[in-house]
Amino acid sequence: MKRREFFKQASVATIGAAAATTLAAPAIAQGNITWRMVTTWPKNFPGLGVGAQTLADRITKASGGRLTVQVFAAGEMVPGLQALDAVIDGSAEMSHGTPYYWQNKSQALSFFTGVPFGMTNRELTAWVRYLGGQEIWDKVYDQFGVQGFLSGDTGTQAGGWFRNELTGVSDIQGLRFRTPGLGGQVWAKLGASVTNLAAGEIFAALQSGTLDAAEFVGPYNDLALGFYQIAKNYYFPSFVEPGLATELVVDKAKFQELPEDLQEIVRIAAQSAYDQVSSDMYANDPRALNALVEEHGVQVRQFPEEIVEAGAKASMELIAEIREGGDALTKETAESFVSAFNLLRARTRDTDMAYLAAREKYITFD
Amino acid sequence: MKRREFFKQASVATIGAAAATTLAAPAIAQGNITWRMVTTWPKNFPGLGVGAQTLADRITKASGGRLTVQVFAAGEMVPGLQALDAVIDGSAEMSHGTPYYWQNKSQALSFFTGVPFGMTNRELTAWVRYLGGQEIWDKVYDQFGVQGFLSGDTGTQAGGWFRNELTGVSDIQGLRFRTPGLGGQVWAKLGASVTNLAAGEIFAALQSGTLDAAEFVGPYNDLALGFYQIAKNYYFPSFVEPGLATELVVDKAKFQELPEDLQEIVRIAAQSAYDQVSSDMYANDPRALNALVEEHGVQVRQFPEEIVEAGAKASMELIAEIREGGDALTKETAESFVSAFNLLRARTRDTDMAYLAAREKYITFD
Repeated sequence: MKRREFFKQASVATIGAAAATTLAAPAIAQGNITWRMVTTWPKNFPGLGVGAQTLADRITKASGGRLTVQVFAAGEMVPGLQALDAVIDGSAEMSHGTPYYWQNKSQALSFFTGVPFGMTNRELTAWVRYLGGQEIWDKVYDQFGVQGFLSGDTGTQAGGWFRNELTGVSDIQGLRFRTPGLGGQVWAKLGASVTNLAAGEIFAALQSGTLDAAEFVGPYNDLALGFYQIAKNYYFPSFVEPGLATELVVDKAKFQELPEDLQEIVRIAAQSAYDQVSSDMYANDPRALNALVEEHGVQVRQFPEEIVEAGAKASMELIAEIREGGDALTKETAESFVSAFNLLRARTRDTDMAYLAAREKYITFD
Repeated sequence: MKRREFFKQASVATIGAAAATTLAAPAIAQGNITWRMVTTWPKNFPGLGVGAQTLADRITKASGGRLTVQVFAAGEMVPGLQALDAVIDGSAEMSHGTPYYWQNKSQALSFFTGVPFGMTNRELTAWVRYLGGQEIWDKVYDQFGVQGFLSGDTGTQAGGWFRNELTGVSDIQGLRFRTPGLGGQVWAKLGASVTNLAAGEIFAALQSGTLDAAEFVGPYNDLALGFYQIAKNYYFPSFVEPGLATELVVDKAKFQELPEDLQEIVRIAAQSAYDQVSSDMYANDPRALNALVEEHGVQVRQFPEEIVEAGAKASMELIAEIREGGDALTKETAESFVSAFNLLRARTRDTDMAYLAAREKYITFD
């Protein structure tokens, strides 16, 4: 008999003899509990929706079912962009999405997803886990009674799908473009008419002509969403999303009531899912891109240098505005981010980029 | 009362009444067990030794002490480079090191640590977790009755410490250089006299003059080991270690006897530690490098282009030799690695490198 099966039976056998204090303990101490995880992703959505399910399954399995997590895709319990609200109002215990979806609650949250022309995913985990990021993130979410944990990352994204080839900044004027978060604000500075839509709503908006262009993530997700059927020009890389971290959000009070072992399981499951999703995206993006080009006639393009340069200028302006005009917590977040960024970019430049440049220059494995 | 405390008491209370089958079950079903983790690292060694301890603590905590992992630093139970043998011969249940330390058992193992001019750490996790790497690694370790899990990564390393400035390949001839794994074989092709020593033994060998040069990991570790006291020229980047993955190795039979929830805890704890160690190294390397330069007068240098080019040529030769002359499993590993490498490098080049180049060109956050 396995230990936990033994304990289950022992629990039943001894419950009648248990002291009154045990019977008065919260329900959590007396048996398995089920938590609801609402997500911002379509059901089984590659990388991200699968990542939410993987995380839920890992918690369930590692806890031997003591904490069973039930996943709801976008729209199953609440619309995707109301996932955090569902945790705040108590109709779910967990959500899975990305912090910048909630920048209307606090602009600080965008920094934990990623910043235009900002950190790569490894720079972001270094900041969040070792250079003060998590502590500030906790302060931001404390205002809403929740706590966030990194749960995945897309890596540097694709720049987006455009009906027509781009020749320069003039082509951006008035362009109706789906691109959320701070990145959306950068594209707005370049003249685009920017909107956010949850993943499942983008295709219809492109098809109906409500949108001229859309960026979501990268080849693996974008292939699944079918954008190539409408727009054939696929631009790389995204300079506004050099990484996009996803989050697991928990109801903080309920989380703290969990026994310590279950809290630890939630924490390490989220961090393991972070690596799993990041690896999934990295492995499957290039396979999906090959399919898009070879089977669907997609044109892979780089943004014209004029757009990249204007995007960089707009990104620096935006960060400067936030550092000057944001609320206190947003300013604290931005200062911490910039300080970590300036420390980490030196390593990225002198070690990572230097290595990759040499590899590209000399190496061929046939 | 917390659930697991309750169960502990329930267990004691009911043990006398338990059926004979329960009493005859293996010890594992009847209470907490303790596993010994032998490591290749010095006690509390930054990043890597701390990572082993963190992993052990996470397993212990997430299992509520049901699986308690006790860590032994290099030399405490066995010398660092005998850690895997201790698991194979049953004197420990787990080891924490890096696969290429055991390339004398199978050359295939080097690929799971990292390959000269090969994959970055994210490329490696994509290969291991999604492109068939883990399955081949399992076949290699099955020969020894153990299983490996990635448990950390240093990221792209520093190239090493040299007493004298390097001007070209001629300076490498006969150089007594500590550098292990396939990287050591590349440096040997360049003319160096190569050796491996565990972390704790390198400083003394440099000091006594047994070594002319040494590479270990990067600034965070190297600062702790004190190499700057002997050699002042610190070269970047390492082209033979574009990433170095650490491993958790478990006794496979004992692992499979664990209840499923404990197996899952070990798996997700290892993967969470992978991300934790990688973040730790990324955050702390640049801080350590600043200290080395500002407080210890270290000269940061790039390898002369002649050495980089010769290193690339030697690396391609070495991989070709392994693909031609290795045993069957080593060949299978090499083919899988090269196939994944060629898929993934396109993403790294067209997305990651393209983004970073634009960031370096345009972005300053003061």
